[in-house]
Amino acid sequence: MARANPPSRLTRRPTTRLEAFSDGVFAIAITILVLEITVPAGAEDDLLGAIADQWPSYLAYLVSFATIGAAWLKHTAITDLMPHTDQVFLRLNLGLLLFVSFLPFPTRLVAENLEANDGAERVAVVFFGLVLLAISVFLALLWRYALAEGLLDPSLGREDTQAIGTAMAPSFGFYALAILAALVVPKLAVVGMLVASVVLAIPPGALRHLRAPRA
Amino acid sequence: MARANPPSRLTRRPTTRLEAFSDGVFAIAITILVLEITVPAGAEDDLLGAIADQWPSYLAYLVSFATIGAAWLKHTAITDLMPHTDQVFLRLNLGLLLFVSFLPFPTRLVAENLEANDGAERVAVVFFGLVLLAISVFLALLWRYALAEGLLDPSLGREDTQAIGTAMAPSFGFYALAILAALVVPKLAVVGMLVASVVLAIPPGALRHLRAPRA
Amino acid sequence: MARANPPSRLTRRPTTRLEAFSDGVFAIAITILVLEITVPAGAEDDLLGAIADQWPSYLAYLVSFATIGAAWLKHTAITDLMPHTDQVFLRLNLGLLLFVSFLPFPTRLVAENLEANDGAERVAVVFFGLVLLAISVFLALLWRYALAEGLLDPSLGREDTQAIGTAMAPSFGFYALAILAALVVPKLAVVGMLVASVVLAIPPGALRHLRAPRA
Amino acid sequence: MARANPPSRLTRRPTTRLEAFSDGVFAIAITILVLEITVPAGAEDDLLGAIADQWPSYLAYLVSFATIGAAWLKHTAITDLMPHTDQVFLRLNLGLLLFVSFLPFPTRLVAENLEANDGAERVAVVFFGLVLLAISVFLALLWRYALAEGLLDPSLGREDTQAIGTAMAPSFGFYALAILAALVVPKLAVVGMLVASVVLAIPPGALRHLRAPRA
Repeated sequence: MARANPPSRLTRRPTTRLEAFSDGVFAIAITILVLEITVPAGAEDDLLGAIADQWPSYLAYLVSFATIGAAWLKHTAITDLMPHTDQVFLRLNLGLLLFVSFLPFPTRLVAENLEANDGAERVAVVFFGLVLLAISVFLALLWRYALAEGLLDPSLGREDTQAIGTAMAPSFGFYALAILAALVVPKLAVVGMLVASVVLAIPPGALRHLRAPRA
Repeated sequence: MARANPPSRLTRRPTTRLEAFSDGVFAIAITILVLEITVPAGAEDDLLGAIADQWPSYLAYLVSFATIGAAWLKHTAITDLMPHTDQVFLRLNLGLLLFVSFLPFPTRLVAENLEANDGAERVAVVFFGLVLLAISVFLALLWRYALAEGLLDPSLGREDTQAIGTAMAPSFGFYALAILAALVVPKLAVVGMLVASVVLAIPPGALRHLRAPRA
Repeated sequence: MARANPPSRLTRRPTTRLEAFSDGVFAIAITILVLEITVPAGAEDDLLGAIADQWPSYLAYLVSFATIGAAWLKHTAITDLMPHTDQVFLRLNLGLLLFVSFLPFPTRLVAENLEANDGAERVAVVFFGLVLLAISVFLALLWRYALAEGLLDPSLGREDTQAIGTAMAPSFGFYALAILAALVVPKLAVVGMLVASVVLAIPPGALRHLRAPRA
Repeated sequence: MARANPPSRLTRRPTTRLEAFSDGVFAIAITILVLEITVPAGAEDDLLGAIADQWPSYLAYLVSFATIGAAWLKHTAITDLMPHTDQVFLRLNLGLLLFVSFLPFPTRLVAENLEANDGAERVAVVFFGLVLLAISVFLALLWRYALAEGLLDPSLGREDTQAIGTAMAPSFGFYALAILAALVVPKLAVVGMLVASVVLAIPPGALRHLRAPRA
């Protein structure tokens, strides 16, 4: 009796700090990416050319920004539907944040090696793709766990949770494909990852629901 | 029936995480600017002189700080009036944050090149101005979208939304002007951008409403 | 009539984002201070000695950490008593954050010059003290403004607001003194600033109220 | 009378900003760790080898990430049970954050010296262990203080608070052991610290409560 209540205090927890901490990590990871972009010393003789020469940095920055942005959107889509979290979800979430906060390292490797020799280029992009894949795997794990453990708002219909699940799925296979492509055409694979993040970030049912006329 | 309610759960979303994530990005972008300010090695023989010589860094720091601060003020002015957000607004907001978090890079370019040759100075300030312009364009987009899609609190009167819209407008043309000025007088253009951020940050109707006597 | 209500929506604002954004800036400024601490390359032959040699870095880190921590405590003490904020308070707050986020730069100067020649040491510590003074001036301004404009919870008694005001006052004169001391005995002035931050952070009435027995 | 209420306004405070500020510091400390990971210049000839050679960086990154993650979990476990905070708790919390935000420095020392000579390796790992120990001491202090001062939700039973206390205890002795081990077998001690963080992060009663069937 007396036991029945307290365990729920210790295991079922409010989502406030889960969200605040995750938002902090997402926000920092997405913002410190820019610290990696630099123009070499002595660039003042042709600054315009030096800025243009940094295109691999901008491309890598854009992919990372788009990936973290898309991951944040999916993360909020999950937690917005959760009235509370539990101890396991909190730990799976740390797994997600581990790869999100690690992303600036492979991003820098891509930026530095996209115009290096073929081997380095390939290694950097495959490594980058693996981290992107890990992020999307952990997001899928969070979703599956929340669904299986009944952490979602019970008022959500089965049809709706299936719709979200479907929207979560494709990124998964896509990053696996992009990693394979990186072995052959690394530059194209990076562009593909950028397109993927942007396309996957299009809201499910956006066209159907969002533009409906309002009174 | 069963459908009519859930879609609103998936499309109309609370603004909590939008605000927390945005506040995080604004706070980090405004704070890491200082990492770019350094005094050259061996400055201890004339540290006062070395600190004074960093004036282009302080100027660039001030402009970026004032711009991000002003953008944050406008962002809160918009979201404070929104009872909820939607999927498109979340993505437009990521567009804004892309340029806010990118700002430290052109800030550093200005700091490094404000005393370099004329060409580098001009390129750096124009590049900087373009990013400031992009920030102000995205803020205007957010405002227009919120207004058009009925995301604002319906109790707000037409007169009030017009007042805010008017307050949003000028920054737009101002940055375009500053970019043109940067082609001729880059240093003056930077000072102009600083004045702009400060002037544009003066609250609409501040003088009329804020100093009214209170019981 | 219709006007009387909306202006209060545009001028009197919730404190949520003011607090979230400020907490972000305080948290980042206090955390990136550590990025400045490094051990010189080739230190592995005598790592213990090299770690010990960084004492000026630790001292500067501690003073900055204690100052930002004390400023955060005072900031929360003010905003916890405010049911809402206004447009001017938001801008004064940006002034405070400008100096808080600038602090890592003078902190690094102190760390680098505390064992340099006398002149550099003096310049670095005075510069550092001026930024600490600016932070304490802006905190006092925020408090005075909140008091004068009726932003504080009206249920607070006059006696209580006076108690807080008294607790706010001393830091002010203290930093001015420390700056003067820095001209003569810079190392001692830094230690004084550390003691000041810690002493000033002792809660007003802590001994009287906090240790009272509870049922 | 009039006095009896206001003092509680000044001493008993909401936990909102305590949590927001702490989440910020935890999030930043856990995210900037990645800035320390770099591949040496000229690595493009054998990028795969260069990435593999960074294993001490990944190990140090993992331990710090796991430690900060575990500390964050314990911190939320404490504050989730606190309806309000007080002035002393706020200051003890700053003590915890001092060591959390300091962690990137010893992390870097470990990463840089794990393959250096025996002496440097030992010094780096012992220093690292001492900071981890300090973090766990401050967490225990926060818990004890909250318990002793009646800051916890009174509806929590004695049995439950004891369960949490028990879960808090072991990390303490573990880090002391790991520091001793570091004097003899530094590499193994680092692995031990990693295992410790992961094991200690397993939720108390996880197996008993979390997998219970739900209707």
